[in-house]
Amino acid sequence: KNLASKLVLEPARTARSLAQEDPRRIIHSIKVGLAIALVSLIYYFDPLYEGFGVSAMWAVMTVVVVFEFSVGATLGRCVNRGIGTFIGGALGVAAHRLASCFGSEIVEPIVLAASIFIFAATGTFARFFPKWKARCDYGLLIFILTFCLISVSGYRDDEVIDIALTRLSTVMIGGSAALAICILLFPVWAGEDLHHLVADNIEKLGDFLEGFGDEYFKTLEDGNVNFAKWEFRHGKFRFRHPWGEYQKIGGLIRECAFRLDSLNGYLKSEVQAPQEIREIFQESCQTMSSESSHALKNMARAIRTMTSSYVAVAKSHIAIAKSAADNLKSLLKTNSWQQTDLLQIIPVITVASLLIEVVSSTVKIADSVHQLAS
Amino acid sequence: KNLASKLVLEPARTARSLAQEDPRRIIHSIKVGLAIALVSLIYYFDPLYEGFGVSAMWAVMTVVVVFEFSVGATLGRCVNRGIGTFIGGALGVAAHRLASCFGSEIVEPIVLAASIFIFAATGTFARFFPKWKARCDYGLLIFILTFCLISVSGYRDDEVIDIALTRLSTVMIGGSAALAICILLFPVWAGEDLHHLVADNIEKLGDFLEGFGDEYFKTLEDGNVNFAKWEFRHGKFRFRHPWGEYQKIGGLIRECAFRLDSLNGYLKSEVQAPQEIREIFQESCQTMSSESSHALKNMARAIRTMTSSYVAVAKSHIAIAKSAADNLKSLLKTNSWQQTDLLQIIPVITVASLLIEVVSSTVKIADSVHQLAS
Repeated sequence: KNLASKLVLEPARTARSLAQEDPRRIIHSIKVGLAIALVSLIYYFDPLYEGFGVSAMWAVMTVVVVFEFSVGATLGRCVNRGIGTFIGGALGVAAHRLASCFGSEIVEPIVLAASIFIFAATGTFARFFPKWKARCDYGLLIFILTFCLISVSGYRDDEVIDIALTRLSTVMIGGSAALAICILLFPVWAGEDLHHLVADNIEKLGDFLEGFGDEYFKTLEDGNVNFAKWEFRHGKFRFRHPWGEYQKIGGLIRECAFRLDSLNGYLKSEVQAPQEIREIFQESCQTMSSESSHALKNMARAIRTMTSSYVAVAKSHIAIAKSAADNLKSLLKTNSWQQTDLLQIIPVITVASLLIEVVSSTVKIADSVHQLAS
Repeated sequence: KNLASKLVLEPARTARSLAQEDPRRIIHSIKVGLAIALVSLIYYFDPLYEGFGVSAMWAVMTVVVVFEFSVGATLGRCVNRGIGTFIGGALGVAAHRLASCFGSEIVEPIVLAASIFIFAATGTFARFFPKWKARCDYGLLIFILTFCLISVSGYRDDEVIDIALTRLSTVMIGGSAALAICILLFPVWAGEDLHHLVADNIEKLGDFLEGFGDEYFKTLEDGNVNFAKWEFRHGKFRFRHPWGEYQKIGGLIRECAFRLDSLNGYLKSEVQAPQEIREIFQESCQTMSSESSHALKNMARAIRTMTSSYVAVAKSHIAIAKSAADNLKSLLKTNSWQQTDLLQIIPVITVASLLIEVVSSTVKIADSVHQLAS
């Protein structure tokens, strides 16, 4: 009974929550199934099969390996696979030509194995380059793969160019089928996800400041930014949208979140200042937190609707928050504190100075948001 | 001239620094080249080639795709690829048998395409399961791939079982060759890297506290922990080493690093307390920071050498740091502060309370380290 619940009930429950969390996951799965089934039809129709033979397999393989959740990720893999296959195939043909010049049955395999060793080792080392790793790690893998396959095949079959061309064309067919279905049927844009994620996180900062409740941030992965860069113009995003800016805002949001977290820690801690001291600070602190909250929420709205007028509204809220911070600083400078117990006043002052830091975080976020909302 | 420097000099410089940073990268590249060249020999020797034919290609492909930097990562991919190929192949044969029962040339492709659609869509959805994504994402991909290839091949070639078995055996040959070279020639253990990374990061916390210098942490990636779990007993690591504990310590180190970072911010900020006030706090603060530093360094040593006696030394340092923290707290409770300007005293008190938090971070790290060093 316990086993049945572990093998059937638990996965079913996880599946349902995964689907409810993001219904696009189900659509994606159907799209992948459709694309693979479609491309496998090449195998069933005689006229198509005669053109490619067993190599038609490569088209199916390409779809399976290349189809990713977002358009950007799929496009990136398609381009990587296409270029990797092309360069690897071309160099493989060249290596085969070079090796067959020697004619001897002993020298030829040695030359081939040596060239495979050199290209595989160089290609593998190139994958460590940070720039390449981010952009074309998969392409380098496919390059090594195709180079080895073509140069080795040439040893048994002299029609290397035919093999290379069939491979390239089947990869192109599989890749374009995957891309077409990915883009035409309910496309998922990595850039749009990134855009909304940033807006949601800024809004959550605002909610937190408003209610000092618990916050939970979805992490902003650098991968998303790379995928978004692959995506061409779509929806409200122009061609050269500043995708790098999202990474910067992501960092600022995290900084602000850490400050809010320590704020939360102090508010929850047992050492609480007496009522009369808190009352003195209350007005400035409330103004700072509510105005920062309004500013953050307007920035989230500015990003969502891509209208810069909300940024102006946010900036007017920030101005009020800033003047409250200045008030607080001058309040601290007066000498009316000499008769109070230091240990009692510290928590309140800490909260106040954390709020001053939150205001300055908000100012930094506003500067970055300005660029995304225009 | 500029182009030449961009295309030749810059990559050469990056390559040199990558190799100097971690010479194992060069060794890894050579190992990959060697493994691929070795497996491609199957193609050149007639007796070996006759057994597999063109399918010998799959062995080469497997090596390229499966060979990773660390033993754990390679092992994980090998097991994934092996099991994925086995299950996918078996179900592919079953699907082919089912489809050929119908006998009709119209029904057979429809049944095959439908089964491909169902398995590909289900497999793709299964990749979203968090548990599976971490452990067998690649295996699911290979399962979909093999299922499609085998069931589709069966339509043109009735020897499906032969195809499936050849595929499985070539994958096994490629996988074992990759594994053998990965483990036998200068192996890189993900677990060992993780272990040293954690020790280094703890040591850096200690250095930072000692000198309040700049710190730079290499990030601890969750991936490493997953790779380490694949690795069998090696060196000083017993079979069920608590790899999950590293993730926990990683979180604690980050927490402590944030606190040190704010500490650094306060020490660099322009608002500085007058000398006479600082002197009062100095002794307790210095004790807390130097004792925490000693404690952290001893913990790093405990992890590196895996001897728990260093943990005991660390704990005695922590005890001293704790009593210094208590001294400081009672110092704050006295009423000798009433005649001082509040704004001047706040930075010093903030530094002191951050140091108290650092001490409590150190205590938490010590509890976790105890488990790893025994």
